[in-house]
Amino acid sequence: MGRPGRRSKFFETRSCAANARSIRMNASIFIMDSWYVAAIEAELATDTIFARTICGEPIAFFRGSAGQVIALEDRCCHKSLPLHMGMIEGCSLRCGYHGMVFDDTGRCTEIPGQEHIPANAVVRAYPVRSRHGCIWIWMGDPALADDNEIPDYHWLDAPGWGARTNYVHVKANYRLIVENLLDLTHLTFVHGRTIGNAAVVKQAGVTFERGDREVKVTHIMRDVQPPPSYRASVAFDGPVDRWMIVHYAPPSFCRLYTGAVQRQGDQILRRLDWRNLNAVTPETATTTHYFWGHAQAHDPGDEAVTDFVVSQIKATFEEDVVIFEAQQAAISADPGRPTSRFSTKADAGAQHAMRVLDRLLKEQASGQPVHIKFTELQLAPQLPASDVDIAIDI
Amino acid sequence: MGRPGRRSKFFETRSCAANARSIRMNASIFIMDSWYVAAIEAELATDTIFARTICGEPIAFFRGSAGQVIALEDRCCHKSLPLHMGMIEGCSLRCGYHGMVFDDTGRCTEIPGQEHIPANAVVRAYPVRSRHGCIWIWMGDPALADDNEIPDYHWLDAPGWGARTNYVHVKANYRLIVENLLDLTHLTFVHGRTIGNAAVVKQAGVTFERGDREVKVTHIMRDVQPPPSYRASVAFDGPVDRWMIVHYAPPSFCRLYTGAVQRQGDQILRRLDWRNLNAVTPETATTTHYFWGHAQAHDPGDEAVTDFVVSQIKATFEEDVVIFEAQQAAISADPGRPTSRFSTKADAGAQHAMRVLDRLLKEQASGQPVHIKFTELQLAPQLPASDVDIAIDI
Amino acid sequence: MGRPGRRSKFFETRSCAANARSIRMNASIFIMDSWYVAAIEAELATDTIFARTICGEPIAFFRGSAGQVIALEDRCCHKSLPLHMGMIEGCSLRCGYHGMVFDDTGRCTEIPGQEHIPANAVVRAYPVRSRHGCIWIWMGDPALADDNEIPDYHWLDAPGWGARTNYVHVKANYRLIVENLLDLTHLTFVHGRTIGNAAVVKQAGVTFERGDREVKVTHIMRDVQPPPSYRASVAFDGPVDRWMIVHYAPPSFCRLYTGAVQRQGDQILRRLDWRNLNAVTPETATTTHYFWGHAQAHDPGDEAVTDFVVSQIKATFEEDVVIFEAQQAAISADPGRPTSRFSTKADAGAQHAMRVLDRLLKEQASGQPVHIKFTELQLAPQLPASDVDIAIDI
Ligand code: FES
Ligand code: FES
Ligand code: FES
Repeated sequence: MGRPGRRSKFFETRSCAANARSIRMNASIFIMDSWYVAAIEAELATDTIFARTICGEPIAFFRGSAGQVIALEDRCCHKSLPLHMGMIEGCSLRCGYHGMVFDDTGRCTEIPGQEHIPANAVVRAYPVRSRHGCIWIWMGDPALADDNEIPDYHWLDAPGWGARTNYVHVKANYRLIVENLLDLTHLTFVHGRTIGNAAVVKQAGVTFERGDREVKVTHIMRDVQPPPSYRASVAFDGPVDRWMIVHYAPPSFCRLYTGAVQRQGDQILRRLDWRNLNAVTPETATTTHYFWGHAQAHDPGDEAVTDFVVSQIKATFEEDVVIFEAQQAAISADPGRPTSRFSTKADAGAQHAMRVLDRLLKEQASGQPVHIKFTELQLAPQLPASDVDIAIDI
Repeated sequence: MGRPGRRSKFFETRSCAANARSIRMNASIFIMDSWYVAAIEAELATDTIFARTICGEPIAFFRGSAGQVIALEDRCCHKSLPLHMGMIEGCSLRCGYHGMVFDDTGRCTEIPGQEHIPANAVVRAYPVRSRHGCIWIWMGDPALADDNEIPDYHWLDAPGWGARTNYVHVKANYRLIVENLLDLTHLTFVHGRTIGNAAVVKQAGVTFERGDREVKVTHIMRDVQPPPSYRASVAFDGPVDRWMIVHYAPPSFCRLYTGAVQRQGDQILRRLDWRNLNAVTPETATTTHYFWGHAQAHDPGDEAVTDFVVSQIKATFEEDVVIFEAQQAAISADPGRPTSRFSTKADAGAQHAMRVLDRLLKEQASGQPVHIKFTELQLAPQLPASDVDIAIDI
Repeated sequence: MGRPGRRSKFFETRSCAANARSIRMNASIFIMDSWYVAAIEAELATDTIFARTICGEPIAFFRGSAGQVIALEDRCCHKSLPLHMGMIEGCSLRCGYHGMVFDDTGRCTEIPGQEHIPANAVVRAYPVRSRHGCIWIWMGDPALADDNEIPDYHWLDAPGWGARTNYVHVKANYRLIVENLLDLTHLTFVHGRTIGNAAVVKQAGVTFERGDREVKVTHIMRDVQPPPSYRASVAFDGPVDRWMIVHYAPPSFCRLYTGAVQRQGDQILRRLDWRNLNAVTPETATTTHYFWGHAQAHDPGDEAVTDFVVSQIKATFEEDVVIFEAQQAAISADPGRPTSRFSTKADAGAQHAMRVLDRLLKEQASGQPVHIKFTELQLAPQLPASDVDIAIDI
């Protein structure tokens, strides 16, 4: 397990100094000691090497003999050919140029034509885990990788929930996406045809909770009209109490607990419960792998209902992507300018998240450990046994 | 009205320091205190927000309730979404992200979800005017914008003239276009099939007049064969006296007075009179919005004649654009090299124009006022009542 | 003939200082005092101006009145229009903008509209020669250009050989191609379906000879199975003795002598003799004009055999190009990183070649003469009269 004292040593003992420099470059804009979602399980077929750049680092993913996912630096340390152009051999990759073989620890085990394997003949190997239908990767010091710290996204494959996971490539910095998820007042203007309506902006009672490494934003809207996509999913025929709770954990995990109940006196007539689970993985400074899952609890066993709900949500994500990419284009066209010149009340959550990120990146840059420990967070809603009643009681 | 003393204050009191820096960056290559043509009137439909970058600044144009054109900075000061992605509401724009509203002065008048409007919630508003079928924009200190200083392009909609206005996007710096217009010896080699022939280079008596902020180049060719496009427009059947007068005013206004008369003794048998009116608006350092109008006085009432003449001229512009873009590509491929290593006699006009521009940019950079005042220019041909006889008498 | 003492003067007396600086910029990555292949003879039609960038310099090629090739800087010194957009007039080019004429020495001989020709009105002229079906260009000080130093590629048009020459544009730095040609162990993994098989890596007896300005790598494989393309070209029906000799001369000439014999006791039953002649001409830092010829001596008079052999070889070049471009993309994505972190035994030839190049570039940067003299090289195989027996005797 990682100890802070080891950290700078880790960076120094990389296979060469230039390698370390490259890492530091990425580390100035990305938190490295963190889990990220690298892929949806289904993206990674057997017998195929899958290439994806994460936090600026090109990575080759493949399945070993037992089906387990292995992730190696996607650049042969011999002559820079991407390893994804090579061949899988058991739990190793053979480079497609001069045939060197690298095992699942990144160590070279064969150099055709010679016995001696130089100490520098090694590529980086990344800790990876399969969980909740996703492949998770640890981008920092492998010694610090802790399975228990993989963010809790259990709703994606838990009983009592009908869920789907999606991937969209976005030409924008990951922060723009996190800010979006933490300020839901945009629903009214961007998503008026699906999940937004005037209620979100005008009637919402919003509270912000700011932790050392997290943010929680709670919207409670009582006695409001349900938005179009709610009505399409559950047969509401009158006003509802509606909630939207967003929990942010760095670097870029946003879990949304949303839903509504229609009451008659003390009785609940109809109820909608959703989890919208976002894992925003940086690719480069201006591009992002955006993974999002959506789970519904009102008809968990009905695939058609889940498909319908997710198709509604998908439309809202497509609306958001247009926004992100337009923001990024405007920012890239004049990078000297601040992206935001003032903040609104509704920005309080996003603003705190950005401050947390900035502080962590500064700590990382100064060599302090920034290890993101998901299990130590305080603000995520504590879920009772039934899990569905959480917001109703608020 | 602008006073020099106010100037630096204007730059300082921009909504934030970064904004001012961005302006200064553009100001190192573009004159800011000047009118520019932003669009042809017809480009700007009602109910549509039109986006165009001018002098490096992205701008959203739209028509207010009374049909008047309004121009706002095309980047929301909240989170950088381009405002052209929003909605028109009367004389205001509502941003398409969080719904803030900006009026025609750029001031934010509504932030959904809160009462307080922060002082920084403002985008830049640009003075705009409709004149001669074009939309003109003032890129500098709004306090200095003076309608009387809009360059005189009245031939585009004056009685006695048949005219058309055109737009072409050019992948080249605006200076390459100005230089082209001020050295008409290229007509022989680039436009031999239309308006050029050997006469332009070989027989022209050229005079150069150099003002403090302007240039005039006069070509008089006596007893020469009219070029192909002249012959196609007017039934010349013998040699003519031909003239081409180019007047340049900074930053990039070039008005060409061209024509020819066929004489028999003291009598004028046939006569061709054209105005070619160029407004060269920088987009970025390597791209330009090139607006040009063309007016003819020989058959002003006959639309077919005007169309025919303009189609001839249009062909020459297309030939020029190929040249500009090839020059720019060569320059961009090796930017350390001077674009020109020596000058010819024919370059005298272009050379002076570039010196004027360089001097003005230097003055602007040092904080001196460079306000371009069109009405104070001296060298533009003084037009007699009939306007057509001007060159004949020269 | 060039004397070292003249050299720095040459760079200083270029038409202007910026020109010299531009040259120096290219000189930091390219050897300038060298012949390069600029084009295949057939690429350069009569009456057409052919544009190609070599070692970072844009060049216009055309044929003069006698059919001889002339090469001028492809950027008019007047206003930067590429000269390839102009017209051929005898042994001169007329610029397509203002009509200036430049003769085959680069000197301006006509400026339309004036008598005086300024001293700076000159573009660079490059020594060019036609030899072995190729057009060769000298990129350095013209005074040092020596026809005798054009690399020996005579097999491309010699009696007793059937040959073809090919061109492929590669999006990779030229060094990646040189390294490839000097380490043939990649044949097994990249070209298994054509010229490679396990023998290359596993059974080869390889010797390296390192000269001051050259490298020779000799592979002798005795009693091995001939690879697929050998068997397709000559009817081998048993094991062969096979050889591959690679000779490298800077900047980037690699000549491969390859072949095989099938013996029965002292008798030679079947024999395959090939020359693979590579001229790797840098275009920019990340792109290359790759010329390669292939000659066969087993059926020199049969065009169909030559076509078949070359089609086999062409397939291997296409496989290599994929490798080069993938390497370059990986390198360009993270340019701070070394392209190679260690070397294998098989790298010894490529490694020495890169050291020779680095040393020559360093000498060039410090103003020392680096003039590449092909005739003074020592290691190229000395060919007996019959030329075919060379490798068999080794
Ligand atoms: S580049 Fe991978 S083995 Fe050589
Ligand atoms: S980005 Fe315009 S209102 Fe937020
Ligand atoms: S640019 Fe070549 S003659 Fe003017």
